[in-house]
Amino acid sequence: MDRVPVLKLEDLLIVSIQIDLQDQSVLMLQEDLADAIVQNRARGVIIDITAVEIVDSFIGRMLATIASISRMLDAETIVVGMRPAVAITLVELGLSLGGVRTALNLEKGVAMLKESSLTGPATSAAAVPG
Amino acid sequence: MDRVPVLKLEDLLIVSIQIDLQDQSVLMLQEDLADAIVQNRARGVIIDITAVEIVDSFIGRMLATIASISRMLDAETIVVGMRPAVAITLVELGLSLGGVRTALNLEKGVAMLKESSLTGPATSAAAVPG
Repeated sequence: MDRVPVLKLEDLLIVSIQIDLQDQSVLMLQEDLADAIVQNRARGVIIDITAVEIVDSFIGRMLATIASISRMLDAETIVVGMRPAVAITLVELGLSLGGVRTALNLEKGVAMLKESSLTGPATSAAAVPG
Repeated sequence: MDRVPVLKLEDLLIVSIQIDLQDQSVLMLQEDLADAIVQNRARGVIIDITAVEIVDSFIGRMLATIASISRMLDAETIVVGMRPAVAITLVELGLSLGGVRTALNLEKGVAMLKESSLTGPATSAAAVPG
């Protein structure tokens, strides 16, 4: 049971991190997520870290890597449910998660992604005359 | 990290089971879920068991108990993401999860709950003349 499931909801993917991720399970998650983005033509990825109580540079880098992979595949990543202590630790570690957007909870994350897909480049490009 | 997070999405709650649940974590999950249903006035609970590969009578009873608690609090429970092997084992164990509805995946579960809240008793009661 050390594979993190990737849940699909419309054009969003939801990942809830609950286990202490090891190198191997992080690699599997990145692969599963990349596959799921392509297969489902997902526009956004929401990573819920409500259950993550202790964070280290490994998890910080994992979040940044997932966001980079998603961006390459034209999907936006939002990290939700960060505990205050986790935010403090990440900043203390010098990992400010540049390029990763955050939202308070799943609901706000979904709202943020829906908003940006309405005003995002894909929609505005369709509005270009000619 | 052995507390299963309860995610809120509009009037639905989503629980993704990824860890091998022990007695204590099941009790915590039931409490957290009951609290969350009341606090968020949730109408539905979706339990994702995509990551559950092996099932025993303990997990089967847990799902039935959660469904019963939710029903008392006027919320409907849908179990999603069941693997074929898990379905076979549950039936072989004689646990047919009576009273628990299932859906193929999160998306279909959400659609099912939205449908039933449109046609459910709460809405039809409002339409009674007089």
